[in-house]
Amino acid sequence: MVKIAILGYGTVGSGVFEVVRRNRNAITNKIGEEIEVKYVLDLKTFEDDPVMEVLTSNYDDIINDDEVKIVCETMGGVKPAYEFTKRALESGKSVCTSNKELVEKHGPKLLKIAKANNCSYLFEASVGGGIPIIRPLRTSLAQEEILSITGILNGTTNYILTKMETEGLAFEDVLKRAQEKGYAERNPDADILGFDACRKIAILTSLAYGKNVDYADILTEGITAVTGTDFAYAKKMGATIKLFAKSLKKDGKYYALVAPFMVTSENPLYAVNGVFNAILLNCNMGGETMYYGKGAGKLATASAVVADVLDCAKHIGKNLDTKWDEEKLEISPVDSAVRRFFVRVLGNDLAGIQKIFGEVELYDGVAEGECGFVTGEMSEAEYRQRAAEAGNVITMIRMD
Amino acid sequence: MVKIAILGYGTVGSGVFEVVRRNRNAITNKIGEEIEVKYVLDLKTFEDDPVMEVLTSNYDDIINDDEVKIVCETMGGVKPAYEFTKRALESGKSVCTSNKELVEKHGPKLLKIAKANNCSYLFEASVGGGIPIIRPLRTSLAQEEILSITGILNGTTNYILTKMETEGLAFEDVLKRAQEKGYAERNPDADILGFDACRKIAILTSLAYGKNVDYADILTEGITAVTGTDFAYAKKMGATIKLFAKSLKKDGKYYALVAPFMVTSENPLYAVNGVFNAILLNCNMGGETMYYGKGAGKLATASAVVADVLDCAKHIGKNLDTKWDEEKLEISPVDSAVRRFFVRVLGNDLAGIQKIFGEVELYDGVAEGECGFVTGEMSEAEYRQRAAEAGNVITMIRMD
Repeated sequence: MVKIAILGYGTVGSGVFEVVRRNRNAITNKIGEEIEVKYVLDLKTFEDDPVMEVLTSNYDDIINDDEVKIVCETMGGVKPAYEFTKRALESGKSVCTSNKELVEKHGPKLLKIAKANNCSYLFEASVGGGIPIIRPLRTSLAQEEILSITGILNGTTNYILTKMETEGLAFEDVLKRAQEKGYAERNPDADILGFDACRKIAILTSLAYGKNVDYADILTEGITAVTGTDFAYAKKMGATIKLFAKSLKKDGKYYALVAPFMVTSENPLYAVNGVFNAILLNCNMGGETMYYGKGAGKLATASAVVADVLDCAKHIGKNLDTKWDEEKLEISPVDSAVRRFFVRVLGNDLAGIQKIFGEVELYDGVAEGECGFVTGEMSEAEYRQRAAEAGNVITMIRMD
Repeated sequence: MVKIAILGYGTVGSGVFEVVRRNRNAITNKIGEEIEVKYVLDLKTFEDDPVMEVLTSNYDDIINDDEVKIVCETMGGVKPAYEFTKRALESGKSVCTSNKELVEKHGPKLLKIAKANNCSYLFEASVGGGIPIIRPLRTSLAQEEILSITGILNGTTNYILTKMETEGLAFEDVLKRAQEKGYAERNPDADILGFDACRKIAILTSLAYGKNVDYADILTEGITAVTGTDFAYAKKMGATIKLFAKSLKKDGKYYALVAPFMVTSENPLYAVNGVFNAILLNCNMGGETMYYGKGAGKLATASAVVADVLDCAKHIGKNLDTKWDEEKLEISPVDSAVRRFFVRVLGNDLAGIQKIFGEVELYDGVAEGECGFVTGEMSEAEYRQRAAEAGNVITMIRMD
C-alpha cells in the first residue's frame, strides 16, 4: 500500500482522485501495490463528495505524515505550488505534477532538489495531457539524438483551426463558439497567442537536449492573423494550416519557434484535428515517431499524473533521474533558419514576384486582387528582406 | 561502464552495434553510464568490420564473463534463441530482444525466469520496430484499463495496400515490386497472410491484460483477397482498406482478430501509409492515444533494442517486472463480435438485399454487374447466416 496526497481538488486534482479510485483493481493488478489517497488539500469543501473523508486545508498534515510518499501537485500556477513542491521534495516525498508553468519555470531546480533527496519530480501531464511523451523521451528514446520536435501542443488553437477549415468560419466566430463550449478560456490569450504551446515546446526541448531553454528565447506567433482566405489557399495546395511548436538541432545549433505552418498531407500531423494533440519526433536512428491523443481534459491529464504516481510507487526512496540541467541552451536567432515560405501579395505580377523571390510556385484566382506563391528555400532574414523589397505582401505562412 | 553482448550479427544485431557506437555520447550523457559492446556472437566472420575486435563464436565466453550484464538476443527464431536466452537470464544477465516469435511463444516463461534471477527480459523491438509501445503499455498506461488495441503492425502489407490504393495496381503486381525493393520477403506468407501481425497483437494483448494469449486462438485473415475493385468502393465511401490487428475487452469478454478493415478518415489510422506502423489504444481514462513510426528496418528496430539495454543498465541487479502470466486469456469466438460489414454482391437488387440484410447504405455503379453496401450492426455469426441466405456475396470487408 502506497499512500499519496493530492494538492488542489480542481479539474485535474479531482480527476486524479477519480482515476485512482475507479481503476484501483487495474492498478493493483499491474504494479502489485495498492495506491491510496490519504489526503486532498483544498481550502474549499465539497459536500456529498467522497473527497470529504480525506480533505484537509493544512499542508503540514501532509508534510509531517511520513506515510505519504507521493504528492500530486495539481494546483497550477507558481505560488504557492513552488514552495509546496519544494517542501515535499525536501522531505523525501516524490512530486507528480500537471503544472506546466511551474515545470517550465523551475524544472531544473526542482529536479536537483528531488535528486538530492532520493525522490523524484515527474511531470508527464505537463505536456500533451494524456499522451505519453515525457517518459518516452526519458526512457524509450534515451539512446537517440533528437533531430527535431514538431508538436501540435495546444488543443484550443487546433480546434479553432480545424473548424475554420472544415466549416469555413472566421477566426473570431470559431473562438466565440469554442468559448461557449468550454474549449477556450474566457481570456484565451495564452492559447491563441501561442504562449501555452511555447511553454510546452520549451519543456520538450530542454528534455531532448538536457539543458534549459528559456521560453522567452522562442519566437512565438499565435493564430489570430490566420484567415479564411489562407485556408482557401491551403486547400488549393492540398495543405492545411496548423499551429506548430517546433525545435530542431542543425549543425550544432538549436532553433525553436511557435507559429502557424502550411502542412501538406505527407506530414503525419496533417490529420491531427480538433482538440487532439500530437508530437512528431525525428531521431537520428529510429527516424520519425509520432505520439497522438487528448492534449487536455480532466481524466486524460489526471491519467498521466497517475502514471507518474505508479512510477514513483515502484521506486520509493530512489530518484528517477531526468536530465535537465540549469545550464542554458542557446537558441539561435530565427533569422538564420532556412525554409520555404507561402506568401500572399497584392496583384498577380508573376514576373515582378520572380524578380524578387526567384522561381516560385504560383496560386492564382483564390481571392480577388491578389495571388499566393511558395518560395524556394531561404533564411528568415533573407525572406524578410525580399518581402520589404516587394512591398506588397499581405501575409506569410511558413511551409513545413 | 556497462558491458553488453550481442547474439547474432545480422540486420538487427549489426544495427545494435551501430547505434551503441554512433550514439555513444548521447547515451552516456543521458544515462550517465557508458555502454560498451564486449562480445558479438556469430559463427560467420566479417572482414574489415570493427565487429571483428569483439567477435566470438563461443557462447560460453559470454555466459562465463561476469562483466557482461546485458545480452541482446537478435538472432530470431526459437532455436537456439530460447536456450541462449534462458541461460543468460539464469546467470543473472538481462536479455533485450527483437525476436517476436520467441516472445510470443515463451514470453511468460522467460519473464518468470528473469524475475527469479533479479534481471529483466525486455522486448520493445518485438512489436512495432522503432515505435515505443511495449514500455508505454508497461509504464505510462499502467493506471489504465485498456478497452481496445487496433494496430497496423505489418509494414509489408501496409505498403502493398497503400500502393494498390494510390497507384491502382493489383495485389500480385505490388507484391512483386515490394519483393524487388526488399520490402517483402521472397516467401511473403507470414506477412500477407497476417501471421506476423497476429503474433504481434497476441503479444500486445497479453501485456494489456496480463495473461497469455495463444495466437492460434486469433482468427487471422490476410490481404490476398483484397482487389482494386474493393479500393474503388473504398474511395467512393471516403474510406481506405487497412490490415488491422485488433483486440478488445467488452462486457468482461476478450476478442481478437487480424483482417482487412474498411477505415474511414475519422480514424487516426486512416492516414498511416507505406511501411509505417501505428497502434491506436483506447483506454478507459485517457481515451485514445496513438503511436506511430517505422515498424521495421535495421536502425529503428536496433534503436528499440538499445532503449531496453539502457533501461536494464539503469537497473542492474533488479527485475523490471512485466505483468504477463502463463495463465491463458480466453479469446471469445469471433462469431459473437458485433460490427458493421461492407458487402459486395452480384446484381443490384436493393429490395432483395434489404429483405435479407435490413436497412443498408448502397453503393452502385462502381463495377459492372454488382453493387456494394454497408450493413447495420450485427454479429459475425448473423452476418454469415444472412450471406449464405443471400447466396450472391462476392466479398465482405469488416467496417472499423
